[in-house]
Amino acid sequence: MWLRNCWYVIAWGHEIPAADDSRLFTRTVLGEPVLVYRTAAGDLVALEDRCCHRHAPLSVGRREGDCVRCGYHGMKFEPSGRCIEIPGLDTVPPKARVRSYPVVQKNNWVFVWMGDPARSDTALLPDNFSCESPDWKHRPGYLHYDTPYLLICDNLLDFSHLSYVHEKSLGGSTRIAQARPVIEPVPGATHDWPQMGIRVTRHIEDVPPPPFYQRFRQFDTHLDRWFIYDFLLPGTLLMHSGGRPTGSAPDAPGPSVRLHSCQTLTPETETTTHYFFQQSHPAGEGDDTVTESIYNSLIGAFNEDRDMITAQHRNIALDPQRAMLPLAMDAALLQFRRLLQSRFEAEHRAPVLA
Amino acid sequence: MWLRNCWYVIAWGHEIPAADDSRLFTRTVLGEPVLVYRTAAGDLVALEDRCCHRHAPLSVGRREGDCVRCGYHGMKFEPSGRCIEIPGLDTVPPKARVRSYPVVQKNNWVFVWMGDPARSDTALLPDNFSCESPDWKHRPGYLHYDTPYLLICDNLLDFSHLSYVHEKSLGGSTRIAQARPVIEPVPGATHDWPQMGIRVTRHIEDVPPPPFYQRFRQFDTHLDRWFIYDFLLPGTLLMHSGGRPTGSAPDAPGPSVRLHSCQTLTPETETTTHYFFQQSHPAGEGDDTVTESIYNSLIGAFNEDRDMITAQHRNIALDPQRAMLPLAMDAALLQFRRLLQSRFEAEHRAPVLA
Amino acid sequence: MWLRNCWYVIAWGHEIPAADDSRLFTRTVLGEPVLVYRTAAGDLVALEDRCCHRHAPLSVGRREGDCVRCGYHGMKFEPSGRCIEIPGLDTVPPKARVRSYPVVQKNNWVFVWMGDPARSDTALLPDNFSCESPDWKHRPGYLHYDTPYLLICDNLLDFSHLSYVHEKSLGGSTRIAQARPVIEPVPGATHDWPQMGIRVTRHIEDVPPPPFYQRFRQFDTHLDRWFIYDFLLPGTLLMHSGGRPTGSAPDAPGPSVRLHSCQTLTPETETTTHYFFQQSHPAGEGDDTVTESIYNSLIGAFNEDRDMITAQHRNIALDPQRAMLPLAMDAALLQFRRLLQSRFEAEHRAPVLA
Repeated sequence: MWLRNCWYVIAWGHEIPAADDSRLFTRTVLGEPVLVYRTAAGDLVALEDRCCHRHAPLSVGRREGDCVRCGYHGMKFEPSGRCIEIPGLDTVPPKARVRSYPVVQKNNWVFVWMGDPARSDTALLPDNFSCESPDWKHRPGYLHYDTPYLLICDNLLDFSHLSYVHEKSLGGSTRIAQARPVIEPVPGATHDWPQMGIRVTRHIEDVPPPPFYQRFRQFDTHLDRWFIYDFLLPGTLLMHSGGRPTGSAPDAPGPSVRLHSCQTLTPETETTTHYFFQQSHPAGEGDDTVTESIYNSLIGAFNEDRDMITAQHRNIALDPQRAMLPLAMDAALLQFRRLLQSRFEAEHRAPVLA
Repeated sequence: MWLRNCWYVIAWGHEIPAADDSRLFTRTVLGEPVLVYRTAAGDLVALEDRCCHRHAPLSVGRREGDCVRCGYHGMKFEPSGRCIEIPGLDTVPPKARVRSYPVVQKNNWVFVWMGDPARSDTALLPDNFSCESPDWKHRPGYLHYDTPYLLICDNLLDFSHLSYVHEKSLGGSTRIAQARPVIEPVPGATHDWPQMGIRVTRHIEDVPPPPFYQRFRQFDTHLDRWFIYDFLLPGTLLMHSGGRPTGSAPDAPGPSVRLHSCQTLTPETETTTHYFFQQSHPAGEGDDTVTESIYNSLIGAFNEDRDMITAQHRNIALDPQRAMLPLAMDAALLQFRRLLQSRFEAEHRAPVLA
Repeated sequence: MWLRNCWYVIAWGHEIPAADDSRLFTRTVLGEPVLVYRTAAGDLVALEDRCCHRHAPLSVGRREGDCVRCGYHGMKFEPSGRCIEIPGLDTVPPKARVRSYPVVQKNNWVFVWMGDPARSDTALLPDNFSCESPDWKHRPGYLHYDTPYLLICDNLLDFSHLSYVHEKSLGGSTRIAQARPVIEPVPGATHDWPQMGIRVTRHIEDVPPPPFYQRFRQFDTHLDRWFIYDFLLPGTLLMHSGGRPTGSAPDAPGPSVRLHSCQTLTPETETTTHYFFQQSHPAGEGDDTVTESIYNSLIGAFNEDRDMITAQHRNIALDPQRAMLPLAMDAALLQFRRLLQSRFEAEHRAPVLA
């Protein structure tokens, strides 16, 4: 169950080669191979990476100016996806074209729209401001998962796992699991989207600083911590989190940690997923070693998640029909699944270009 | 076609960590992941290794006293399988439990009962006495097979393969294949089980000592050899075998080889199998080098079997519908398959807990 | 969709061990494991490599004279496929036999007939003369493909790919793709076969010598090149190709390159294929380094094909139902697919031994 009429991140901006670079970038999204490149004018192009003739990947071919030529029998495609040359043929049949996807880069994330191009709307792009901002610093991350994307959404929608999966990395306290978050709808950005996602707000008071914070800044007191994030369709997490000495006022000066994280999940196939992520800290605080240290904590923790979700997925595969037991801590993930289901049904009432 | 109301070996006793060891042991049996551990009091516990909440394996979590805590969201389970704590929840719903399996250790084999716990009956445990006895010595063995368990049962029920598969290891003579064994039913241990398996008795007279025996003891005469074994449901072989100088009386003093072997097959999935085995010699005869030498012969021979059965399985996979040709030498294995079929039907007339 | 009533190459002649060599050769053709060996009298034998008893591969057994003995339970088969000995049994049931295939070696290719033996006809063997001839030299090649065999047929039936896939190896000019070939039917060799394949004739005038030719012989002029080949059912290419200085008469003396190539595709399974190939040059021209150089060019180019077809197959697997776009350059491959389809239907009107 994948939404099509929405934006998916296909790459970090720096993954897509410059126009004068002969390499071609390809990645599979929702089971479709997609080629992304930049024109000489700097525009992004996203084409179906499957020649209409015999289905060879265009990415095995070559750039010719702003066009791409298939490396199998030489058909040449322009950025619109239209074929403009077939070796040995005088005319090109109108059906000779590959699909073109709306594509846009925002704050160093490259988004493709996998559904009806006429419905693509940049107002629906998430506000991943800290991915590219003079005020924030981070090191970008990418992981590949051999599990369905919804299992990873589930993980991100219930932070009670921090106390267990990340006990020694991000977590540091069972108090995170014990705290009940506030769960609210995130209103949609446009008329078409009455709800865009789920907001999860969790405050935990008077807990020891997590090991991860200690490497960032030395604390000798307990902290009050907060995690406030929006989890948006189809699978993007935007989070403010941090900690300050217990009892200090939210805006009081003095030592604190304030972070912003952007994470997003893109289904590759039914059982595999792309995961793009970063955790930013204010540009004025800490040097490159802090940025690197945060990244290392994060990649360590996200490997803990991947190990757990992969083990979970293996168990599910042994008995796919077995029901899970919904519990109070699942409120956010169940709401998100319902929201996804209702969007999916709405999309199928107004048929989508396949 | 798996029986559920019976005992399967899940591990050698020494594979299950002691209560003060933090490691958790897991193995899949009949497609179900099963966690086995020991309480402080020394009792064995076998639980479904799949948290009822989101199906994560409990074995990725941790021991807490005699309980186990899931490493994903922190649910804590007691040895009965009942969940006794859910972080952040005041009460635990009664449905929060994982399946608990009857489990018992006998002579260093750990057995689990995969069917209706109310029907579990230790009278049905096989008499694997030589696995743990002051009178017998062996080195325990384990092999993993990428083939269905019935193909390995077939192999063990027709020793005519010794002459060919094990010509240079256990066999040594085509006379084994030529000898017709006596095949008899093994009566059941309880009222419910009119028949427990198949007894195969094979005597071969006046044959050269197999290489395997020569390493155990030097013979300068031909031998009379015997193989007498019960092959019991669901897949356990218990065998007396040996050889003595041709013409000597069965109980005459003088050089002879007398061995006892316990072997058992446990389906892991439809196409993979656990194989536990040993071949014991009398404790008073031979030193550790003999024990080691017997083990090495056995593991060498069992790898020959695995190579053959794996090649056979590959051929079967190319054309699964093709019929095999039953021959006289298949009497025991066909009888065993019929017995298994009739038990399977009996089990389904009296429905089993799934 | 495989034809059965036709010859498939299973091996190069030198791959089949001599009668006094204990090794047994096996290869899977059309999903059937086939054992091939030579008798003491030098005759070829091709048997189903699957014992009728328990389906073990006979190739894991051993030669005994002109017979083969199964390595599992010792059944012995003669070259006709009839079982002539079962250890422990006085009589051999008539059903105890494995399938025997018509097999013939011609010019160092070993062919098996996978359909009704009564219909096998050596008049249908292709004329692979340059595979074994005092007048021609080559080094034999073999590649294994993880793709269906029809995708490779497609590749060989449209040489316009030379300009792109083999731009830097065999091709050297976009003129190859631009030239329109003449396509004609190849009449059948027997009454039963009104058409045996497709003849493709392509002349390209006044093009630079391909790198591949330059290593064979130095040219300082442009060339006129030709490719004339028959592509025969079920999947054999027989080709004359070459080049001569532009404007020179076809039979004029002087520098030219004249080559003959034999290539054939044999389905292993639905998704894997055997590829046997060679490219011969006249024995009187060039030394062993030329033979080796041609082979190296060929294997390099055929790996380019395999990379492309494997990438194409991966794309097809993502969406197997998506239609391809037929173009003028596909005339030969579409005609071949129609021919194959009509033969397939003819075969099923006159039922084939399965």
